[in-house]
This record gives sequence, structure tokens and C-alpha cells, in this order.
Amino acid sequence: MSPVASPPTEVATLREVGPEDLVALARGAAVLGTGGGGDPYVGRLLAEQALREHGPVRLVAPAELPDDACVVPVAMMGAPTVIVEKTPSVWLIGRAVTALTEHLRVTATHLACIEAGGINSTIPLVAAAQLGLPLVDGDGMGRAFPELQMVLPTLSGIAATPMSIADEKGNVGVLTTIDNHWAESLARSLTITMGCSSIISNYLMTGAQARESLVAGTLSLCRALGRRIEAVRAAHGDPVAAVADELGGRVLHTGKVTDVARRTTTGFARGDATVVGPDGVLELRFQNEHLVAVRDGDVLVSTPDLIIVLDSDSGEPVTTEALRFGHRVSVLGAPADPRWHSPAAIELVGPRYFGYDHDPVRVWGPAAEPAGGAR
Amino acid sequence: MSPVASPPTEVATLREVGPEDLVALARGAAVLGTGGGGDPYVGRLLAEQALREHGPVRLVAPAELPDDACVVPVAMMGAPTVIVEKTPSVWLIGRAVTALTEHLRVTATHLACIEAGGINSTIPLVAAAQLGLPLVDGDGMGRAFPELQMVLPTLSGIAATPMSIADEKGNVGVLTTIDNHWAESLARSLTITMGCSSIISNYLMTGAQARESLVAGTLSLCRALGRRIEAVRAAHGDPVAAVADELGGRVLHTGKVTDVARRTTTGFARGDATVVGPDGVLELRFQNEHLVAVRDGDVLVSTPDLIIVLDSDSGEPVTTEALRFGHRVSVLGAPADPRWHSPAAIELVGPRYFGYDHDPVRVWGPAAEPAGGAR
Repeated sequence: MSPVASPPTEVATLREVGPEDLVALARGAAVLGTGGGGDPYVGRLLAEQALREHGPVRLVAPAELPDDACVVPVAMMGAPTVIVEKTPSVWLIGRAVTALTEHLRVTATHLACIEAGGINSTIPLVAAAQLGLPLVDGDGMGRAFPELQMVLPTLSGIAATPMSIADEKGNVGVLTTIDNHWAESLARSLTITMGCSSIISNYLMTGAQARESLVAGTLSLCRALGRRIEAVRAAHGDPVAAVADELGGRVLHTGKVTDVARRTTTGFARGDATVVGPDGVLELRFQNEHLVAVRDGDVLVSTPDLIIVLDSDSGEPVTTEALRFGHRVSVLGAPADPRWHSPAAIELVGPRYFGYDHDPVRVWGPAAEPAGGAR
Repeated sequence: MSPVASPPTEVATLREVGPEDLVALARGAAVLGTGGGGDPYVGRLLAEQALREHGPVRLVAPAELPDDACVVPVAMMGAPTVIVEKTPSVWLIGRAVTALTEHLRVTATHLACIEAGGINSTIPLVAAAQLGLPLVDGDGMGRAFPELQMVLPTLSGIAATPMSIADEKGNVGVLTTIDNHWAESLARSLTITMGCSSIISNYLMTGAQARESLVAGTLSLCRALGRRIEAVRAAHGDPVAAVADELGGRVLHTGKVTDVARRTTTGFARGDATVVGPDGVLELRFQNEHLVAVRDGDVLVSTPDLIIVLDSDSGEPVTTEALRFGHRVSVLGAPADPRWHSPAAIELVGPRYFGYDHDPVRVWGPAAEPAGGAR
């Protein structure tokens, strides 16, 4: 284990997000995005424009939400490979929220993030700034997952729909489906026809539901992570080890990317990457997000735990669409929110759902090693 | 030209549709459906159930509509090859209408057909019976066309959206698009994901708009056509010639189906059929509806005029999904509503839109032969 330049600190609660927070926040969000959730550079640019125009966004912890709050999540849907070439229009983001609230004839009191990611943590900031609403400091996963039904609110029985979907041309849809899997299927087909990216607003919920079903403190954690990477790097420390430490995870592999096979099919960025290093040959399999890491035939870690790829020197997160030959990267594993390890959750997001014929392989941080040692 | 058993009569105006009208009405609608618009047997079964349960449906001529009437068309969308195997649920049909009116917060005063076809002329009867509303005696085309934007209301500047879309499982969507082509694209992708068939409600319009943009008298014509086929057949006359006469068209070809290539792709039933007869080899090209009829290299007739395939003996319309080897059929051409021959209409539904490299070839009935004779 590499030395960590600064000790893990209590995550400072973020009460407000201004333009000055965005670089760190988007970077940290891209770490939790596990290869997906969007490029932090694009995400930062989107939010910067909105925050400079409308002022900072107030954050509210889930615990502070009134029971009857009307919490409206907003996110980007699509293939990150496309998003980097077709940045969402800022006006469109607020439109997705109002399309849903107008359809339901409700008034949003708070917005929320449905996942963590370089873009999906900043798009809700854009909408909150535009609409003058506070944003919940939390999200629906504590990470990113590729499909719409893969959120903790699904496990709490919260319906994804009615949901809205909007594209940059001005087309808008509202879907009401019989379950959250149908919401994914129908919204995905619209997203593909819209050009492989869209803005969606779904899982509208009460404050009480948000307290129960969201992961608390995600935006504070993102900023803390992003700042720590920068601070450790500035102090010539090891930012990769610092991230592992901050997330209670471990560095699994270090090496050079020797191969990337990437295809944008059925609306996702799917592919594999090979990282060759002193410990062997690691294969990463992804569908927007990294799902499985296999070294020399052994699964080192798999969904639902986090598989994070960082630039070995700078500690900057590397999204799947940015992976390229010759890049020296470190692959980390970090534990997911414990709710992702329930049997119902494993059915929703475990390796078998994605077609891998094995049970989840968990990552155990140094502090939580199971009896018998690390796997 | 074959002898016609009974002289063409003024079409009797139909004021009410009861179960006893359905066989003739669905048969006549399938004639105007030009191979598409759904199977008349399935269409009749659907409507019979609703009319027996809720009573007859009152028809209103477009000319009788108040200016401020709220006219709501309803139709099936999808590949007819699928519809015959997956009949729409009756409850679903009314659901598409109410999903749209609830979204728009309007009250429907009349329902309407958007196209003529074995199913698409009877589905609005089902909705009208269920919802206790009168139905406009007219439709948006005077025939059937495969894509959603291909209606006369598009040429009058009426927006296809907001539109609703519903499937038999209970999923519902509402789309609001920037133009009628986008309505087609997005609704088609939802329809495909819904299993290649859906019920839609679109082109909501005022009474004044309906008077201007609909073809009047379609349902009366459908019943008259259907009855005449039956009467001529009973009198041992030539029902094929009677249909040509009723529609001011002509019999172009008679022969035996020797080949049918059919594939359900991109949400449509696409294909070609070959009819070999004494006059040569006729090729029919279809996308749900027949678009072009070519004999020995010469285009005999093309969209927007009607290409109708009838059983040579019985005069029963043959939909594209029912075409089969050995079937003895007659191929008729009949003139489309004259509005379909404007330059804007030809851009919307002419042969070039469908990828055929020629101008429209019109059919001229015996009474309307152009100077220089028939083409």
C-alpha cells in the first residue's frame, strides 16, 4: 500500500455550491462515477455557466428535508461517448424538471442527483441554479450505474415514473410505466432516437422518501475527494492512495492501458479495456460504468462495488470514454453503499444481471477485511 | 373493363354505426387501407365487442362540427404483421384518448379516424363507444399511409403533438415534438419497444381545423364500399370492377401471387410481392401500405394514389400481411384525395420520400382520363 500524503479527514459538509467548488466537485463525482456518469470537464463547464449567471446553489442534507418536500431528481441519460461530443444545452436541463412538475401539477421544493458522476452531479446544479431551488446533498446510488432502474429508490419501492425526457432540439416526452424496468426500456429507446443523449427527470419523491432512499452527503464527499486529490498532488504525495483511503477501498492494480475495445450500442458505451502491469493483465468490462475487473482469470471485484480508474500520477479520474492506449492508470476497488449488497439489490445490479456468470466479488478496505484476509 | 353488376350509387350517409354495420365498414376500410391499416377481421372483432357493450356510435359529418369542437383522433401504430398476432386490448384504446386530454386538460367533444384501414377505421369506434362520444365521419388521409406525419392535417399546419401513446401492458407516454417528423421518429421508437404495436392519439384539433383538413365521409364510403362488394358478389357480378367503379379507379392487373418477401424492420411491415398474370409480371412494393406497382419495368401507379389488392373472385381486400403464394388477386389503382397531389404533399408522401427515384405516377379513372389517353 502506498503512503498517503494527508490523513483521512471528516468530510466537511458543503452548504452551498459556487463556481469555485466545481472543479473539485466534478472531479470527485467522476471518481464515484466508476468510469461513467459523464466527463468532469464537460460537467464543470455546464455548471459554471449556470452558477455564474444565477448565483450559488444552496444544499440541503436529506435529514433536513421536511416530510412533505417535493424532491425532483434530474440527470442526463445516454452514452457518455456521445455526451462528450454533444454537450447538453443548459436551457434543456431546467425544461426536463418543469415538464415533469407541470404534467403532475406539483411544485418542486428541492432538486436532487440520481447518481454520482462528472456530469450527473453537476446537471442538477444547473437546474437548481436556473430554477432557484435548493439541491439535496445526496444521490440515488452513491456511485453511477448504467440503467435507469438501478437506484436505491427502486429498492424502496419508489416509482421511476411519471418521468420526463427532453432533447436539445426541443422534443419532450412524459412516460408513465408499469414498473421501473419499463421506464428504462422506453426512455432508452427515446434517448437513442434523440441522438443517444437526453435529460430526464424521474423518481419524484417526498422528503420522507428521500431521507430513506438516498445516499446522504454525496456532493460534500465529491468536493472533499476532489480537493484531497489536488492537495495531495500539490504536496507531491500519492493521490491514488488518498482516494483509496477516503473511500475505504484499496488499489487493486497499476499498469498501462494496452487495449480498449469500445462500441456505442443499444444506447450505451460498452467495451473492455486491458491494463498490463507488474501484477499481471487486468481486464475491465464496462457498460457506461465499470462492472467487472478480472486479473489473469480471477474476478478481483465486481458490481455493485466501485471499480475506479485513476491516472496513476495525477489521481485524476479516467472515464471509460477517455481510456486510451498507453495511459498509465491505477484501478481501485471501493465498497458500495451497504444497501447495494442486499439480495434484492444484487438481483437489480449484480454481475448476473449484466450477463456475468458469477456472484458479486466484494472489495474489502484495510479497515474491514473479512476473517481469512482479503479476497 | 369488366362489367359492373350494379351502377355506382350516391354514397348513403351513415349517421350511426352499430354492430350490424361492422363487417361492411371494416371491409371497405381495408380497401382504402391499400394493403395497410390493419386486418378487417381483427378490426371488426374489436369494435363488435365495444358496440355490443356500449351501444351504437353516432357519426357527425365534418361540416356539422362546431368551430370550437375538440376533435381527438385515435389510431393504432405499428407493423400490421404484429397486430394480427397481438390484438390491442379494448381498454387500452380509450386510455390513449384520456391520457392526451388529461395531459392537455381539455375535454374531447368528438373522436376521429386519422386514416382508413381495417383496424384504424374501427379503433376510433371502440374509443367512441367506450367514452360515449360521437365520431367524425371522415379521416385524415382518405386512405392509409405508413408514417405518422403523412396526414392532410400536417399539410394544414396542424401539429401531431402533444400526442399520447399506450401499450397493452399499461405503459403510457405523452410526446411534445418540434415537428410532425419528430413525432413519427419518437413514437416509432416507443412503438417498437412496446412490441411493434401501440395505440396513439394525436392531431388534436378544433372543429374548424377538422372541417378544413379531414377527408369527409370516409366511414360512409367504407360501409358503402363494403356493402357493394357483398351485393355484387351475391348477384354473381364482378366485385372487383365494382370497387374500381366506386372509387373512380381502374383494374391494372390480375394474376397469381408467385412471391412475397416480407420483413418486419424498423417497426414496419416492409416487402415486395410478385403477381404474374396474362399482362405480365407486376411487382408491388410496400411499407405497411402499397407504395409502387411496377409491371415489366414500367411504374403503373405510385403513392399518393391508391394501390389496392383484392381477391379476384370475392372482391375482399387483401392486406399485405395476408398476401400469400398462389392467391389470385386483382390490383387496382384509384385516385387519392386531390390534396395529396400538391407539391407539399408530394414532398411528404411522394415516391421520392420512400426512396423511389421517380415522380408520382397517377391513376386516371375512366371518367378523368388526361388528354392523350391513360398513362
